[in-house]
Amino acid sequence: MMNLKEISDLKSNYLHEMFKIMNFSEKEWEVVNGLNLFRYFKKGSYLLRNGQFSETSYYVIKGCLVSYYKIDDEERITDFYAEKDLFTPSCITTKKPSTSYLVCLEDSLVSIGNPENEKIMLDNFPRFEQLCRISTEKSLLKQRIEFDQFKFASSEERYINFAKTRPSLLRRVPQYQIASYLGLTPQSLSRIRRRLLKVEVKSENIAV
Amino acid sequence: MMNLKEISDLKSNYLHEMFKIMNFSEKEWEVVNGLNLFRYFKKGSYLLRNGQFSETSYYVIKGCLVSYYKIDDEERITDFYAEKDLFTPSCITTKKPSTSYLVCLEDSLVSIGNPENEKIMLDNFPRFEQLCRISTEKSLLKQRIEFDQFKFASSEERYINFAKTRPSLLRRVPQYQIASYLGLTPQSLSRIRRRLLKVEVKSENIAV
Repeated sequence: MMNLKEISDLKSNYLHEMFKIMNFSEKEWEVVNGLNLFRYFKKGSYLLRNGQFSETSYYVIKGCLVSYYKIDDEERITDFYAEKDLFTPSCITTKKPSTSYLVCLEDSLVSIGNPENEKIMLDNFPRFEQLCRISTEKSLLKQRIEFDQFKFASSEERYINFAKTRPSLLRRVPQYQIASYLGLTPQSLSRIRRRLLKVEVKSENIAV
Repeated sequence: MMNLKEISDLKSNYLHEMFKIMNFSEKEWEVVNGLNLFRYFKKGSYLLRNGQFSETSYYVIKGCLVSYYKIDDEERITDFYAEKDLFTPSCITTKKPSTSYLVCLEDSLVSIGNPENEKIMLDNFPRFEQLCRISTEKSLLKQRIEFDQFKFASSEERYINFAKTRPSLLRRVPQYQIASYLGLTPQSLSRIRRRLLKVEVKSENIAV
């Protein structure tokens, strides 16, 4: 659990970062401060459910969210959102209710985006549009690279790649959820981990 | 091969569509007409190679492109771009040379985007920025859905899904390239196709 001091520090760091990127004027700064951007959610909170319509995006300042959908009552993990990751609901583009869930894996401090905030930002800073476009283009490319890597990787390579690119999640996320995210059964993920551990012990390069 | 009449009709249809979407004024229309947007490439032309730096995007008006990268001299197909698909090079975001190739599978008429065109468009129509953002958001979601479907699908489901969502490519693309795109060997794709054909013959629902 985060205490009030920590939350307050995280908020002001976030605004400070935003200030640097956007190069705000005094007036713009006031507008942003008035936006009521922050939300704090307890572990286990549902931010979105199958069948709900939502146009709220979540930028994770601290914490971890997981998105999944259900097939035959089984969770299929589509992604994890930790520090500096942005979740955008499909509803914004499809204009239909969500088919997936978004849940807090940890107590999480997030900054929210929604059509009202967006309108205020765009009316006050037209250059915000460009920032959004560039950030969306970056997300598109990142996802493209992940997809390509996933497609051509063996199960073992997928796990190694995940461990390399998102090492903090290895500690924070239950193993069965990592397995689902990687499109593996929990059993085959266990086998892969045992095999890798043996290799590491042999090479005296023991994982901590 | 397309003849001059066909190319000219395709161009004017494309501009007409763009005109409707953008709701151009007379002056804006002149700007767009002066942009020199169109290129015609013969089958087999390379539009991008590993190691090249390019910020040119290609919107396919007619034809088909394929993007791939090479691992141990083997082509790994990342995507196909047919009518109304847009290819954007990773260089734009990474500012590094491309790691993949882009080749024409058919004679292709495309409309190009590059930083110079983009600047002219943005200077003349600021609302173009928003159109770009919305279109990038749509691409992001489309890719997200494809990725999720791919991750949780069996080989057979992947093929069926491809055949459903991009039926015209089944006829236009060599089977070994479809196999690579689906992350399968050509042999397993053949097996899947034979199995599906049997099912279809049994149910008297014969594919054409």
